[in-house]
Amino acid sequence: MVIVGGGFAGINAARRLIRSGPTSLRVTVVDRRNHHLFQPLLYQVAMAGLSPADISTPIRSILEDDERVQVRMASVESVDLASRRITTSAGPLDYDYLMLACGATHAYFGHDEWEEHAPGLKTIEQATEIRRRVLTAYERAEIEPEPERRRRLLTFVVVGGGATGVELAGALGELSRHTLGRDFRRIDPSATRVLLIEGGDRILAAFDPELSRRAARALERLGVTIWVNTRVTEIAADHVKAGDEVVYAQTVLWAAGVRASPLSQALGVPLERDGRVIVESDLSVPGHPEVFVLGDQASVRQADGTTVPGLAPAAIQQGRHAADNVLHDLRGEQREAFEYFDKGIMATIGRASAVAQSGRFRMSGFIAWLAWCFIHILYLIGFRNRVLVMIQWMWSYVRYKRGARLITEHEWRLRPTGSEGEVAMKKASAGRASAADDVSTSA
Amino acid sequence: MVIVGGGFAGINAARRLIRSGPTSLRVTVVDRRNHHLFQPLLYQVAMAGLSPADISTPIRSILEDDERVQVRMASVESVDLASRRITTSAGPLDYDYLMLACGATHAYFGHDEWEEHAPGLKTIEQATEIRRRVLTAYERAEIEPEPERRRRLLTFVVVGGGATGVELAGALGELSRHTLGRDFRRIDPSATRVLLIEGGDRILAAFDPELSRRAARALERLGVTIWVNTRVTEIAADHVKAGDEVVYAQTVLWAAGVRASPLSQALGVPLERDGRVIVESDLSVPGHPEVFVLGDQASVRQADGTTVPGLAPAAIQQGRHAADNVLHDLRGEQREAFEYFDKGIMATIGRASAVAQSGRFRMSGFIAWLAWCFIHILYLIGFRNRVLVMIQWMWSYVRYKRGARLITEHEWRLRPTGSEGEVAMKKASAGRASAADDVSTSA
Repeated sequence: MVIVGGGFAGINAARRLIRSGPTSLRVTVVDRRNHHLFQPLLYQVAMAGLSPADISTPIRSILEDDERVQVRMASVESVDLASRRITTSAGPLDYDYLMLACGATHAYFGHDEWEEHAPGLKTIEQATEIRRRVLTAYERAEIEPEPERRRRLLTFVVVGGGATGVELAGALGELSRHTLGRDFRRIDPSATRVLLIEGGDRILAAFDPELSRRAARALERLGVTIWVNTRVTEIAADHVKAGDEVVYAQTVLWAAGVRASPLSQALGVPLERDGRVIVESDLSVPGHPEVFVLGDQASVRQADGTTVPGLAPAAIQQGRHAADNVLHDLRGEQREAFEYFDKGIMATIGRASAVAQSGRFRMSGFIAWLAWCFIHILYLIGFRNRVLVMIQWMWSYVRYKRGARLITEHEWRLRPTGSEGEVAMKKASAGRASAADDVSTSA
Repeated sequence: MVIVGGGFAGINAARRLIRSGPTSLRVTVVDRRNHHLFQPLLYQVAMAGLSPADISTPIRSILEDDERVQVRMASVESVDLASRRITTSAGPLDYDYLMLACGATHAYFGHDEWEEHAPGLKTIEQATEIRRRVLTAYERAEIEPEPERRRRLLTFVVVGGGATGVELAGALGELSRHTLGRDFRRIDPSATRVLLIEGGDRILAAFDPELSRRAARALERLGVTIWVNTRVTEIAADHVKAGDEVVYAQTVLWAAGVRASPLSQALGVPLERDGRVIVESDLSVPGHPEVFVLGDQASVRQADGTTVPGLAPAAIQQGRHAADNVLHDLRGEQREAFEYFDKGIMATIGRASAVAQSGRFRMSGFIAWLAWCFIHILYLIGFRNRVLVMIQWMWSYVRYKRGARLITEHEWRLRPTGSEGEVAMKKASAGRASAADDVSTSA
């Protein structure tokens, strides 16, 4: 049994197999990283509220208790369905069962060149890169004498009005209005302009219209401007083109367009337009019952014709379900069709405000935020992480301070050599190269 | 008043000026980073015990309470003593008083090319780079079938037997013997070889010989091998030459040779051989009473002929003393000579063991370690950080787990372009390029 991917689906599949599987079971978990990442809280690392290690747990830690499980840090290069073998950067692995749970990555609507100017938010490195850009924008604004350049440094654009975009925009609004107020003398951080751009007709389209409306009001109270029915047509180093308008902004964040892992294409099976693998009702690949695809990498059709959303609870359930189907096989039993138990959705808007819905149940405001905190702490893997995150949340709630306001650089060497060094030093200097690097003459 | 450097000396000078200075005072603190770094605990970030933000505090946070203080994130390019002006990446700054507290950096005894293979430990980026190399070495050893290559992956060399080297070596020993034991199936982490190389005749030369001996025994119990009277003559990508021997090691850490900030040379005043500025007894530069040099950047002669050691307490005291001398000037009073109040020194060896001495007082073992923990928590700036660090220490003490075992990569872009991309992707793949990248054929 080989499981590729240590995210919600992969980890939970492994755990289910360990708990209920026979002693003869052998499971190998492969991931290009050494850690499981709690993605729902990644935006907090990006907004300097938590540290990367607070929301990550080494995969080995999670699965250490059982001799039947092996973990390999390697990237998967290809899958040979016929010979039941995957090729990884650490050599080939034969399997009798294979679970692919590689997750999703960002799509830039055919404009990959936008990525340089508009980082997405799926990995730790992207989160710390965003943190670096945001905090550096304020530091540069502080020493920028020219008002127009200063305005651009304090303009942030978030593309995409789903939960991630809303959470980022809300956090940026809060950062500027509350957290950084006392830190800067020359600029007024609340002069920050945060612009949330959404192509559809409302933000949080997955929620009830009423909750979308309340979330929009909450964002506006934090100083966020929302443009709906607006498509981004260009992203350059210093501006964004949205509809007919040009917005000059130093920092652009990408929270739109997700695309499933490129590995799916190598499988040679039918894919959705966004790259997700279309799986059978038992989560296996058509024609290959021994291969499962789970989580954001898969497209699971539901009875009502929609597909299961790319959410953490769905990935968790699919991981467990696929494990159960393998165990059914081993016991000579019938497999079961997957049914997504929709526990609901939630999104938070800054500190102390959120929206949540489950079935017919609706919640917004402070009480929804408490529920949001509670549920995320509950699902966070690792007691240590739960304690640390809880303490930091309580701290920042009381103090309005974001504790992890750390700007770190790319380059660690003190004396980088050659052209690589020049490139590295250029990146290591504050923020992206722009007009603000020009020497300002007033002290 | 311009203070360059947000470390122990600079921060404490600023705080003293704020607390006791007149309302007409204007202080500008300049640092190329946005944070104050608690260097004594940096090795814990390197050894995956703490997160970077746990030991950093934004300089703006520390100094936010007073309107008279400005903070600029910029690097200082030159100092013009005659016109009393410094040039920074954010423009020039005129001063009536200047305090230079830029700290120290690593020296490689004329072999700067060794830095690539043997990172030092003075910045957050170096700490996370070391963490990445150490954890990746274990991950690669886990999938390495060839015994000799595996041995090299599990061989770590620390150069320098002072407190930093001892702390790193002890932490590596503990990591291998205790923390990682259950994480890896195929390798035995306690087969790790940690080699501490010291040029002098004993480790911890600043301590009593008896404490040096006890520390050496404690290290050996953690599996560390100590070579004294041995000089490193070569460091390459896969080996170290020490004396006559060649040691093949994947990971080499540099904790020897410190050199004061390069900025000192631009001052045109007498320097020690290691680059420290020789200052007067009032901590000012000879011939320029309005310019002070503090902390690791300065060399202060004491009554007994020795110089004040480059320790945090010394930097803190010098910062306050220089501030006091400026206040004396403003009040028309006489300046005072600096006297270092030696509170003692301590070094920790793994979990639950340390050595400490103060005056005639000697301590070792568990009780010394408790004192070490207590004092470091006390001096850590920021209540939030104190709480987080305390909790993580209690956690790892009880669980023998290091919580921040996170491998992060250099490259954040998913699709880096061009040759820069190739270089970046190469760096982003596990560890340094070496023979272990070859495909191993067993599954």
